[in-house]
Amino acid sequence: MSETNRQGAAAEIIFSGDELLRGDTLNTNQAYLGQRLLDLGIFATHALCVADDLQAMVRAIRASLERHPVILVLSGGLGPTDDDLTREAVEEALGRPLEHREDLFELIRARFVSRGMVMGDSNRKQASIPQGATAIPLTGTAPGFHLQQGDTLVVALPGVPWELQQMWEDTVEPLLRARPEGARAAQTVRRIRTFGIGESTLAETLSEFDWHAPAVTIGTRAHLDGVTVILRGPSAAGGGGGLEAVETRIRAILGERVYSLNDESLAEVVGKLLRRIGCTVAVAESCTGGLVGKRITDMPGSSEYFLGGVTAYDNRIKTEVLGVPADVLAVRGAVSMELAAAMAEGVCRLTGADCALSTTGVAGPGGGSDDKPVGLVYIGSVVKSVTSVERLHFPGQREHIRERAAFAALDLLRRRLLQQPPA
Amino acid sequence: MSETNRQGAAAEIIFSGDELLRGDTLNTNQAYLGQRLLDLGIFATHALCVADDLQAMVRAIRASLERHPVILVLSGGLGPTDDDLTREAVEEALGRPLEHREDLFELIRARFVSRGMVMGDSNRKQASIPQGATAIPLTGTAPGFHLQQGDTLVVALPGVPWELQQMWEDTVEPLLRARPEGARAAQTVRRIRTFGIGESTLAETLSEFDWHAPAVTIGTRAHLDGVTVILRGPSAAGGGGGLEAVETRIRAILGERVYSLNDESLAEVVGKLLRRIGCTVAVAESCTGGLVGKRITDMPGSSEYFLGGVTAYDNRIKTEVLGVPADVLAVRGAVSMELAAAMAEGVCRLTGADCALSTTGVAGPGGGSDDKPVGLVYIGSVVKSVTSVERLHFPGQREHIRERAAFAALDLLRRRLLQQPPA
Repeated sequence: MSETNRQGAAAEIIFSGDELLRGDTLNTNQAYLGQRLLDLGIFATHALCVADDLQAMVRAIRASLERHPVILVLSGGLGPTDDDLTREAVEEALGRPLEHREDLFELIRARFVSRGMVMGDSNRKQASIPQGATAIPLTGTAPGFHLQQGDTLVVALPGVPWELQQMWEDTVEPLLRARPEGARAAQTVRRIRTFGIGESTLAETLSEFDWHAPAVTIGTRAHLDGVTVILRGPSAAGGGGGLEAVETRIRAILGERVYSLNDESLAEVVGKLLRRIGCTVAVAESCTGGLVGKRITDMPGSSEYFLGGVTAYDNRIKTEVLGVPADVLAVRGAVSMELAAAMAEGVCRLTGADCALSTTGVAGPGGGSDDKPVGLVYIGSVVKSVTSVERLHFPGQREHIRERAAFAALDLLRRRLLQQPPA
Repeated sequence: MSETNRQGAAAEIIFSGDELLRGDTLNTNQAYLGQRLLDLGIFATHALCVADDLQAMVRAIRASLERHPVILVLSGGLGPTDDDLTREAVEEALGRPLEHREDLFELIRARFVSRGMVMGDSNRKQASIPQGATAIPLTGTAPGFHLQQGDTLVVALPGVPWELQQMWEDTVEPLLRARPEGARAAQTVRRIRTFGIGESTLAETLSEFDWHAPAVTIGTRAHLDGVTVILRGPSAAGGGGGLEAVETRIRAILGERVYSLNDESLAEVVGKLLRRIGCTVAVAESCTGGLVGKRITDMPGSSEYFLGGVTAYDNRIKTEVLGVPADVLAVRGAVSMELAAAMAEGVCRLTGADCALSTTGVAGPGGGSDDKPVGLVYIGSVVKSVTSVERLHFPGQREHIRERAAFAALDLLRRRLLQQPPA
């Protein structure tokens, strides 16, 4: 089971921008481009951030081209300032003089006019692109361009993530798919999102099978909201086998651990189930401090099923607002199975919700003991008057424990709702 | 006003790991290292991600050394698997044979034993480091190392962020500070965190002044929790002028917009103020869905001042649990100044807290109207029986609006608490 198939075509990426090298900006473009390239069967072998320095950029471009990648992506450096040097670097590295394109100039000017802004003199240089290059239509105010240099498609895109993404999807991907090596390499990708199995256990489970599909690579990727199984390979396109057969078998093996096949979040899946069953939900939170409610309301339209909740950090809120019996609190303690149950039941009574979730635990770093260590969390749920509680233990720091606990609560509700008949 | 001073010493960084190139992992180590280097007056001129491929790594190391950086950081590739090739790449690139270090082997084994784990055969190779290198004490199970190669300090660190960070701070920074070029280049850094002024307004405000400090660079960096002003330059070290003088003047200009000088978060600052004044706080949230409570409880020990809260998404929770008068709700609507006030007052009554925060607004994407557009948020506060409400409008998407609203609520409480006498 290999995660990466580096046998296919190779890409290189050069990012320009001192802000990346200073650490002021996280390079999210790299993750985006890496994933999108891989979806086309192209592996990025080198990704370089280089300072806004003309000669350093020229050398980097030349070094990349010597390795003959299928595509060289240049990200950033297309703005109007003196630090924006990608055009000049391509001119010098490839010996292609910059040419002013009046049509491009008019497009940029029109963009300024439509925004009620005045175009500065410095924007004029954005209308110049290297000889033989094709301009990529504006998404913001910086035009991109592409050109063929020997074996390599050279693409220059703005560094602003949404501008880069739009040009990638509208222009660059179609170009790559139209090329013979792109068409050859193009793969189907499936992402199977799971919750409740660790990454190593999942990888081990999957490695025990013979998939009879040598062209399919199976990878895993761990997040706070579970582990995603990523399948890449040829589609069976109607026939048997291929990616689809592997996906079907993995779904059968993992069962209800699988929560989505199309990148839906846990909150989204829970929301759809609540809508389908026709139930409302409320939350009673202690250690998560409001995070479960926040996650549920991440979804637009969640007011259709989410009534609200009580964050009961202080024990008096647990008894006086949620109606948790004081003797249960005194005997069992705030972090206990009984409390989680009483909190979930209490918020149902208070709000009239059909379903409820509760959390109580030791988020740390202080407050742990031998029998109630940091990371211990009880998650309670009520679904149509039936209460159930799970005891969990999360490793790591306060932030990690709280995030994991909130996702675990959503997943508990998801699994319980799966057992309900539709409304 | 320039953000980057590239006149000082240069660093290079090579990251190994297919997961970075596939886009499965965001390269947070790059941002971390870029910032920490700059704090020492060293600018990273090249940061390269290279595939887990021995020859590609060897070529990358050699190319870096030809540019004679003060430091070359190698991140990742120190684990026990066949993909972990940093040791071998250094061996080949520098012609320094790997040597087994029995003392290192025992340290790694002891780490496994203390965790109740059995050390695998594959871990044995982690005890080998290149000839002439010094091992960096374990933070996880992968030892790092450093060596001097010509002008360049070569440092190999594990890719796991917290392991890398601990080795950097405990070992590499002291090494760099002890070197003549490190001592020469070392700069003082000050970060002034502000809330309530946009980045461009702030930059414009600061550009109007003559700081009489040519060696000091002033940069700004926008986040959801405000704009940070970053000063880098020589310390006055007791005398007049220098960084400190600039910092003092900026603080005077920005006044109560400044919330911290030492990277404290808004939640941390609010927590300290509540402790100093001896007040408790509760929250009543609508559009933020629990996020204000979550932010407050991000702080360990927040149970000392945070009692809890009510998330009143459904209007019935607003009236029945928080006691908001139904006629106010009917006449003014859920998104109104009166509602924000009544929610904050209601949660004070319910919980007995001394202070309260409330949020109600239109987070979108639906639900907006001409007089109550998406992005409109009212933030209410009670401090010792005095209520005040602010009306704000945030641009952007649902997630952005909610995050900004939660931070704005914390900032409102901060400004109000500043006016209170200590307990």
